[in-house]
Order: sequence, then structure tokens, then C-alpha cells
Amino acid sequence: MAKSALQTARAAYRPKLPKALKGAVKAVEGEATQSVANQEEIKKLFPNPYGMPVVTFEPTAETACCGPVNVGVILSGGQAPGGHNVISGIFDGIKNLNPASRLYGFILGPGGLVDHHYMELTADIIDEYRNTGGFDIIGSGRTKLEKEEQFEKGYEILKELGIKALVIIGGDDSNTNACVLAEYFAAKKYGIQVIGCPKTIDGDLKNEMIETSFGFDTACKTYSEVIGNIERDCNSARKYWHFIKLMGRSASHIALECALQVQPNICIVSEEVEAKEMSLDDVVETIAKAVAARAARGDNFGTVLVPEGLIEFIPAMKCLIAELNDFLAANAEEFAAVAPDKQRGYIIGQLTPANAAIYESLPEGVARQLTLDRDPHGNVQVSLIETEKLLSEMVGKKLAAWKAEGKYAGKFSAQHHFFGYEGRCAAPSNFDADYCYSLGYTASRLIANGNTGYMSSVRNTTAPADEWIAGGVPITMMMNMERRHGEMKPVIQKALVKLDGAPFKAYAAVRDRWALETAYVYPGPIQYFGPTEVCDQPTKTLQLEHPRG
Amino acid sequence: MAKSALQTARAAYRPKLPKALKGAVKAVEGEATQSVANQEEIKKLFPNPYGMPVVTFEPTAETACCGPVNVGVILSGGQAPGGHNVISGIFDGIKNLNPASRLYGFILGPGGLVDHHYMELTADIIDEYRNTGGFDIIGSGRTKLEKEEQFEKGYEILKELGIKALVIIGGDDSNTNACVLAEYFAAKKYGIQVIGCPKTIDGDLKNEMIETSFGFDTACKTYSEVIGNIERDCNSARKYWHFIKLMGRSASHIALECALQVQPNICIVSEEVEAKEMSLDDVVETIAKAVAARAARGDNFGTVLVPEGLIEFIPAMKCLIAELNDFLAANAEEFAAVAPDKQRGYIIGQLTPANAAIYESLPEGVARQLTLDRDPHGNVQVSLIETEKLLSEMVGKKLAAWKAEGKYAGKFSAQHHFFGYEGRCAAPSNFDADYCYSLGYTASRLIANGNTGYMSSVRNTTAPADEWIAGGVPITMMMNMERRHGEMKPVIQKALVKLDGAPFKAYAAVRDRWALETAYVYPGPIQYFGPTEVCDQPTKTLQLEHPRG
Repeated sequence: MAKSALQTARAAYRPKLPKALKGAVKAVEGEATQSVANQEEIKKLFPNPYGMPVVTFEPTAETACCGPVNVGVILSGGQAPGGHNVISGIFDGIKNLNPASRLYGFILGPGGLVDHHYMELTADIIDEYRNTGGFDIIGSGRTKLEKEEQFEKGYEILKELGIKALVIIGGDDSNTNACVLAEYFAAKKYGIQVIGCPKTIDGDLKNEMIETSFGFDTACKTYSEVIGNIERDCNSARKYWHFIKLMGRSASHIALECALQVQPNICIVSEEVEAKEMSLDDVVETIAKAVAARAARGDNFGTVLVPEGLIEFIPAMKCLIAELNDFLAANAEEFAAVAPDKQRGYIIGQLTPANAAIYESLPEGVARQLTLDRDPHGNVQVSLIETEKLLSEMVGKKLAAWKAEGKYAGKFSAQHHFFGYEGRCAAPSNFDADYCYSLGYTASRLIANGNTGYMSSVRNTTAPADEWIAGGVPITMMMNMERRHGEMKPVIQKALVKLDGAPFKAYAAVRDRWALETAYVYPGPIQYFGPTEVCDQPTKTLQLEHPRG
Repeated sequence: MAKSALQTARAAYRPKLPKALKGAVKAVEGEATQSVANQEEIKKLFPNPYGMPVVTFEPTAETACCGPVNVGVILSGGQAPGGHNVISGIFDGIKNLNPASRLYGFILGPGGLVDHHYMELTADIIDEYRNTGGFDIIGSGRTKLEKEEQFEKGYEILKELGIKALVIIGGDDSNTNACVLAEYFAAKKYGIQVIGCPKTIDGDLKNEMIETSFGFDTACKTYSEVIGNIERDCNSARKYWHFIKLMGRSASHIALECALQVQPNICIVSEEVEAKEMSLDDVVETIAKAVAARAARGDNFGTVLVPEGLIEFIPAMKCLIAELNDFLAANAEEFAAVAPDKQRGYIIGQLTPANAAIYESLPEGVARQLTLDRDPHGNVQVSLIETEKLLSEMVGKKLAAWKAEGKYAGKFSAQHHFFGYEGRCAAPSNFDADYCYSLGYTASRLIANGNTGYMSSVRNTTAPADEWIAGGVPITMMMNMERRHGEMKPVIQKALVKLDGAPFKAYAAVRDRWALETAYVYPGPIQYFGPTEVCDQPTKTLQLEHPRG
């Protein structure tokens, strides 16, 4: 394949490893562990991996020992920068254990395991993908590994290829399923280990033992680069408010991290909106007030960051959407018969008064989206709602009302942006390149150590890579029971933005000033070759959550 | 102001200068020049600067000579990366002539000159902005300098500040106006020189003597970075067609340059659409055929680049829009009285049959946009039309028809992007940092040489900066007469994509293969500190138009 100059130069980069992984290791075990909640239920569901200790690898003088080991690897779910480096880390790790070891990649996600689509990942192939973005080496997919039938189909091919361990690179759900599979294989005594790796640009797979999921660093830096460019344009032209939506449906980590990097006028944090039970109008008012305050200083421009999932965090909107889903599912035919220009009035007449009032306040386009674009189950497709336009339109309306009342005299003109695909496959930053390679290499050591139902863990990540701590964490340790589709299920707790956490508090402490002043910072593009303070900084989130002593 | 780590590190960069500008220079004059067309008319309009020779600066042993010189500078029109370096180049250039020289910046564009809003740009201020993106040092604006009254107001403040020369940094229109001003000041014997600098990310201000406008390099590289990331996502998830609109209303240079960098499946070039008199349906069919051909190989994904101005280059659409403008201007009240759901039918009934047929073929949303979103003059606001969505919607419709006929059996799902503000204020690449600084420095030498009505020119730009050729080109040389708002006006010829030019021919030679195969290239972010083949390459356009001997 044709390569850019940067790709060619970057291929030579040797990711930094924790000191402990540079030679032979011994596994040091901690105490028996417990799940974060629902210990009895989790223990019953995962009798085999439950309670295993945290493992830490330390250097040892003993020389490495093992016979060849065949390993399978799967990329699961949405892309995140650094996936290829996890795979090259596994590859180098098992080859270092024994050069006759082999690595197999299952094609297009977990479905490849079930359907027996795979390829051997040889040195030639691996070398083409070192330090590159994307998941294109074997592709990714969203098939969920949940059923015994899938497990058995997977076992067939794993047995055929002599695979001793499977590494699943994925988010919280995929790692939960990795643990279910580990339990299944252990209960059946199939002798196949399962190891998870924490991946997601959303940053919502983290806890005491997993400091960050990979890809978050690169994705946020890429978004911050272009947001910074927009801010500089905003501050040069001085005539637009830019509303910028950022990927991340369940948590606002991305928006918050970008805010800490670029210092916008406003960053909406969904978790705060939910905690304070803010209405859509409250959110709109917050923004409109900042617009008015800046206008009073003569500054009719600004930037607003909006997390993709906002709508679902507004309690009143959630309630409206739930009623719409129920109503439209039950009355699909009747609704379809209503003339297009009568639909809005018709819907308003059917909803409970509180929801009708909210529905009526929505701009035409969004109101239509809420009734027309439904998924095959009849549900509103919240991800299609252009929240950034919804907010700017409602802010414009409020400002017009204030102007009529003589409370505002500025100009308001908006531009809209949505960033997601722009950053999920960026070439990994040094941090993600090093972190991912270390996660993969650590996975190979967990395999050699016979662990299963573990997540690869690399900690102390705000220190130089040399001082990082590599090991494994029992996945059950991160689990609790949650209701999913009406059933109680064991799942890894999703990490939302904590309002008492250091990153949010850091933002909350300065946001009034940022709203009024123009305090923009322009991070610029990710650099791979420059001074270490430019190339090797972890995210602000990580630095605030794990300050160096 | 708070600075990112990259900004701090980048501030120390010393832009590379052509060898000739490193010491004292002498101006070598060429032959008398002529305008590219309409020589008689242009000569009559610009008797003073007309026919002046091209000037080239060469090193000389004589030491520099001059007394202090006060200079004014204006940023005009849309932002482009490198504007701050033009200004720092002027600053360093005039300080090098004489440390007592002063530089004044007029605030928020040409309006600052007329309204006497200015600031002195001292060394402290200049140092804060070296090698940064944006125009925020003094802001930019779109006021046109066209009237004698404006010229006189400008002269007042120039005289008051003892300014000997004014540098106008802008696109084709701003440089045309710079020449008009030069003629005016010369005719009035005001003794004030006017120098232009070629700025625009659109890349449409270029000719025999101006190889490229500044900002094009950085903007295209920034867009190519994120497009490459999207392509890698596209090739990893393998389920979406990404329709990516790129800024550039008048010319498709940006889309073409990005295509040469990222090798997408399709790049629409407006100039080709116009030359071949393609209909909207022809464009849609081109894309749909590629989608179908890839689907037959099992590849239900791809990337399409669309230039922002496409709609206005489709002869039939131009014709439809013209009729709509005329009709709606004449019948605004009658149209406003039509019920929303009857408007489409009403319009169809009023148009000539050919235009009615095209209007009828448009998706609902675009049809509405064409009648509702008009500017204060009653004209359709073409820039608001979401061409990327228009195309994907129509492609989807065509594919559905082909599916019904059994001619296509794939899946088609689209994502949309628009990039413009993301790149206009990026920190300049090494190329733009060097080129802009050299343009500014050259402007100082033109001023010292007494030239007026000249554009600063730096040529041989595909060679190392050391070998660049610095000089000045009479602006009249680039002019011809064109009809603008019903009147014949002297203007700088806009450079559109030439279908017989090297960049388009390079693309045309490979596009069938790119359409079918997945030949994506991932350029990655602009690098400032790495190896020269990564950091110092000019655009593909420049390399193809000016290959090194």
C-alpha cells in the first residue's frame, strides 16, 4: 500500500516499554479480590475467575522459559488509535517468549471467531502496521459474544489452530463478554485463556486499576487540534459562535478533556446536567447568558463544546423520548396517516401535558426527527439528532426574545461542527503508541503466566514509560449487576465524569472566567519528533486524576 | 495569554529565507510588462503602475542604506495560515533596514484604515505571534477599499502616522483594490506606496509569477490529516460512505490537492463538471457507479470529496437558481402566502419545464433551502446548501432504483463532513511559515526600492528555501477586465483548476483505479520537528506544477 512520508518515518518508532517488561519477568500476586458491588451474584456467575489476585510483573534474573504459544486476537467495537500497537505488542511479546509462537487475527471482530474467518499475523504484516492508526489490519465488528453456541463455534477454531489464549481488545461490554467466555472455557476445562484489553476513545472504561482506556489520548488531542484551529478562526473573524459536538454518547470525558486543552467559552457536561436535573431550557439559558455577557463586552463570538449524548442526560428529554417511543410504537399506522404538516399538532395532542410543552418548544427540524427517524424497533434514533444545531437554534430564539425585551443588543450567528470519525483512527500519539504496545506486551506475559479472565493493566502512566507498572486485573473485580434490556446482567461499571473528580473540578473552578474572557489555547497537531514536553504529555484528565507525587 | 506546549516550542522556529534576502539586496529589473488581457483598458485605468518591470532581488556587496521607514499593514478577507509570519517578515525586514522603522497594524481589516483603528506592532507583540496561525494579531475584515472617500480617509491616517507604504495581505479582490489604491495615491502624488501579498487557502490566486497563495499548503495538509483519519476509519469499519465537503467556492484546488494527498475513491472537480456540462444527475451517477462497482467486490464503503462550490458549476443548477432568484424576487408576497406543504408544487408550476424537472428531482430539504433561505437581495444562499448531503441522498435514491432493477445488491449508508474553519487558522506548516516570512521580508525590500502597485513574489518554491527567488510583480500584469455586478471591472484573473494542468491530469490518470480499489493514503498531522521529507514538502499541486529540474 502507498504510504505517506509521515507513515514511513513513524514506522521506525520503537514504543517505550515499562522497565519491568524489558527482560524476563516474575508475576507478583496481591491479595484475593472482590467485585466492586454485588459480590455474591458476581461470584456465583464467575466461580472460576472470581476472587483472583491482582498480578504485577517485576523483573527477575531467571531467564525466560516457555515453549511456543499460539494466540488469537480480536478487535471489538469502535475504532481507537493504538489498536495496531496492542497487536504488535502481543506479537513481539509471544515471539520473545519463543520465536515459534504464532499470532492469529480474527477478521472483522468477534464475528470472525464465530465464523472462522482469520489470518495469521506474520512479522511482515505486523511491520506494516506498527504505530499506525485504524483497525484495518484485521478489521473490527460489533457482534456480541454472549451465547453458548458462539462460544462452542469459537472453541472449534481455537482448538484447530492450537490457540492457548485469546486476547479481546474492546470496551466495557467486550471485556465483560471476555470474562463470560473465560468462565465458560474454564468451566468446560477447555484450557483456553481469555485476556481483555481496555479500548475506547470515550474514556469511560477506567477505574482504580485501569487508569485510562487506550485511544482517548490521541482522539482528544486530534479533536483539540481542530477545535483550537476553530477557536483561532473564531478569535480572528470575531463574528461567529461555533457549536462543536464531540463523540461520546455515554460519558462526557472527551468534551471535558478537550475543554481542558482548548479553554473554550463553554463546555456542557452531560453528567452535570443530569445531576442537577437541568431542563433543555436551562442548558440553553446557560449558553445564552454567556453569549449576552460577551456581547456586552463587544465580543459577538465564542465556542461551545457539546457532548454527543447530551439529550439522553436531560431528564425531561429522556421522559419525552420514552413517551414518544411508546406512543409511536403503539400507534404507528394512525400516525403514518396524518398529513405531514399536521403531525406536529397531532403529536402535541397525544402527549402528557409536560411532554407536550417540551415537544412544542423544540425547533421544527428536531421535532420532526423525533417522530420520523425511528430505528427498526420503533425507537427514536437519538444519535441522529443534531444537538449542536438544536442548541444554537434555541439560543438564537432566546436571544431574540431578550433583544425584544431590551436585555440584549448583540449579534448572534452560529457555525456547527461534529467531530468523531476524524479522531478514532488517527495515528497514535507517543502516549497511545507506548501504552498500547505495553498493554499488548503485558497480555503476552499474562498468557505465559497462565492467567484468564484478566484485563491487561499498565499503571502509573503519568510517570515516564520506564516507570510504568505492568500487570493484570481480574475482570470480575470491576463488575457489578445492572439492568440491561429488562434483565439483571453482570457488567463492568461504566466510568462517567465524576462531579467531585479532579478534571471536572478543575474546569468548574475556571469556567466563569473562560465563559466571559477569550482564554483560548491552541494545542496544534500531535507531534511525534519534537521535544518531550510537546510529544509525550498524557491527557489533562490523566494528569489531574493521577498527579505525579 | 496561555500557550500550549507546541506553541511555546514553535515560537523559537526561525523561518528559512531565500539566500538573496539574507544580506543587502539590489533590485534587478526585467522588461516592461503587460496585463494578461485587455491591455488598453487596464493601461488607461492604471497609467501610473502599468507596464512596470518585474523586479528580482539579488545579493549585493553594498551595505544597506536607508533611513527609518514607517509601514502600515492590513489583513483582508478570510483567514489563512501564515498571516502572522508575513507581518513578522515585514517587521524584521524594516527593522533590518533601520531599527527606528515602525510597523502599524490596522484593526479588523481594511475598515481599520478607513476608521483609523490601528495599533503599533512592537517587537513584544510580534514575538507573541511568530509561527502561529490565525489573524488575531490585528484581526481581519471584509470591507472593500473601492471608493475615493475611503482612500482619502485612509490617506489622512497614513499621513498622520508618517507611513510611507501600506502592505495589504489578501486574495485576488483585495490585491486588485491594492492596485487601485496604488494608482490613486500615485495620481495624487501622495507619496505612499502600496504592496500586495497573495493570501488565500483556496489556492486560486496564482499565475506565472505567483506560484501559490499562502495558507493553501497548511489548510490542505490539515484537511488531508482528518480526511486520512476518516479514510482509515472507513477502511476499518467497512460500512460507511463518507461524503466530505471542502471549503473553496470558486475553485476546486483544495479538493484536488487533498485528493492527491489521501487518494480517496472519488473527488468531484467543479471545473470538470462545468467544462463537460454535467447535470446534477450525471454527478450522482458517477458516484453511484463507483459505489455499485465497489459493492460488487464486497466493499460497501468509500470516501467522496466534494468542493463547496459544486452546485454553482453545474450549468443546469446555475440556470435553475437564476430563475428561482428572479421569480422569488418578483413574487415574494404571493409565495409567502402559499401553505408550507404546497410550496414545492407551487414552485414547480411556475418554473420553465427544464428547471421544473430539476427542481422536482431534488430532495425535499434542498428544495426547501432553495426557496426559503434567501439573502437580503432575495438570492438563494448557495453556501448554505449541504451539497454533501444532497449528493449522498440522491446517490442513495439511485442505488435503490438500481436495486429494484436487480442491477445492484450492496448496502449504502452515508456519513457527512464539512471542513473549512478547521484549517484556515492552523499553525503554519514549515512551508507556509517560511513562504510567508519571505513574502513579508520581500515586501520590505520592495518598499525600500520605492515600488508601488506590486505584489510580493517568492518563486522557485519547490526548491529548498535557500534557492527561492524573491522579488515583486506589477499587479496590473495579472489583470484583465471582467463583468462584475453588471459592470466591466479590472480584476486579477482567478486561477481555476485547469483540466490540462498537471495536478488534474495526475488525478485523472489514476482515478478509475482509486474509485474501485482502496488506495487510501494517511498523511497524518503536520509535523514541525521531524525529518525534512516529513516536515518540508510543498503541496502535490506545487510539485506537479513546478517540478524540480
